[in-house]
Amino acid sequence: MPHIPLEEHLPGITGLLEYRRDTAEPIRDLTQLLLRGPSSLTEGERELIATVVSNGNKCKFCTAAHTAAADVLLGDTVTAELVKTNISAAPVSEKMKALLVIADKVRESGKLVTPAHIEKAKAEGATDLEIHDTVLIAGLFCLYNKYVDGLDTALPADAGYFNVLADRLKNHGYARLPQGYDHLKKQVSN
Amino acid sequence: MPHIPLEEHLPGITGLLEYRRDTAEPIRDLTQLLLRGPSSLTEGERELIATVVSNGNKCKFCTAAHTAAADVLLGDTVTAELVKTNISAAPVSEKMKALLVIADKVRESGKLVTPAHIEKAKAEGATDLEIHDTVLIAGLFCLYNKYVDGLDTALPADAGYFNVLADRLKNHGYARLPQGYDHLKKQVSN
Repeated sequence: MPHIPLEEHLPGITGLLEYRRDTAEPIRDLTQLLLRGPSSLTEGERELIATVVSNGNKCKFCTAAHTAAADVLLGDTVTAELVKTNISAAPVSEKMKALLVIADKVRESGKLVTPAHIEKAKAEGATDLEIHDTVLIAGLFCLYNKYVDGLDTALPADAGYFNVLADRLKNHGYARLPQGYDHLKKQVSN
Repeated sequence: MPHIPLEEHLPGITGLLEYRRDTAEPIRDLTQLLLRGPSSLTEGERELIATVVSNGNKCKFCTAAHTAAADVLLGDTVTAELVKTNISAAPVSEKMKALLVIADKVRESGKLVTPAHIEKAKAEGATDLEIHDTVLIAGLFCLYNKYVDGLDTALPADAGYFNVLADRLKNHGYARLPQGYDHLKKQVSN
């Protein structure tokens, strides 16, 4: 049971974003900019960064949510699975492998990112902005993972929830759903 | 030297907020809401949460910045120092001690917050919202610490910098400085 009273039909982060809507807004905005804004990294690649961090932090809700989002965006289920278990074997570019390693180091501690990690990423073609965004996305998902688990939020009763959520994250991103989407709100809370 | 090119006169987080101004905006907004918005926790108490998390993550820039801010807001230097070394001996309320312990657990992993930690905080008078905000502030400062250290940002050349920064955080909070504050911008970047 969550440590604070949250709406029962809103698992994971969704109940928290509803609990305090004013702080939810900049959290949504930052996520939308980083994961859906203009970038030389694809939306699927950015969801993989969210996935590797959430998985490393053992946050079940966030790992399931961003694995499902990555699966839908990439059109396969192998990539996210391998990113979680063995980055070097994942079917992503060498640049992405280097960035995913940086994200995983940041997750543990920012101090673990060495010049060698950065040189490797740059040698594989990563730009300064891609490195910046990788570090900030990793930091943001540490916030999410700690928020979701620190308040002991619930998992959805039905794992099919994450497929509906993934479609929403693909089609609508991280913004609050506008009015008129009540059918979707009922399935996956706004 | 930072892992990406940042303006040399902007140490720590300040260079990062300038490097990507669009993502800086929601980060500033969230911080302003949590640390300076209406709350039953004082601004000094909320800076102590930022301090205990930054110190636990060994982020030198953030620890110095929020220690200085707490010192200015609380009017003493003993409280923040004890919060960093021995929470139980710090001259803060029993409620704050319980909340600071929760923040430190969240810093390590959200999963380390137990029902006993929550019951203790509630027994000392903490509200659900105070517990929520403590967890979210702890998550936010993990983001900051990982962002600042993950990109290996510089410390200021002069430690007096943090006193100027603390006055700014007391008087202006975390919002971007409006036009007309150029004298302050020269001392502590906007």
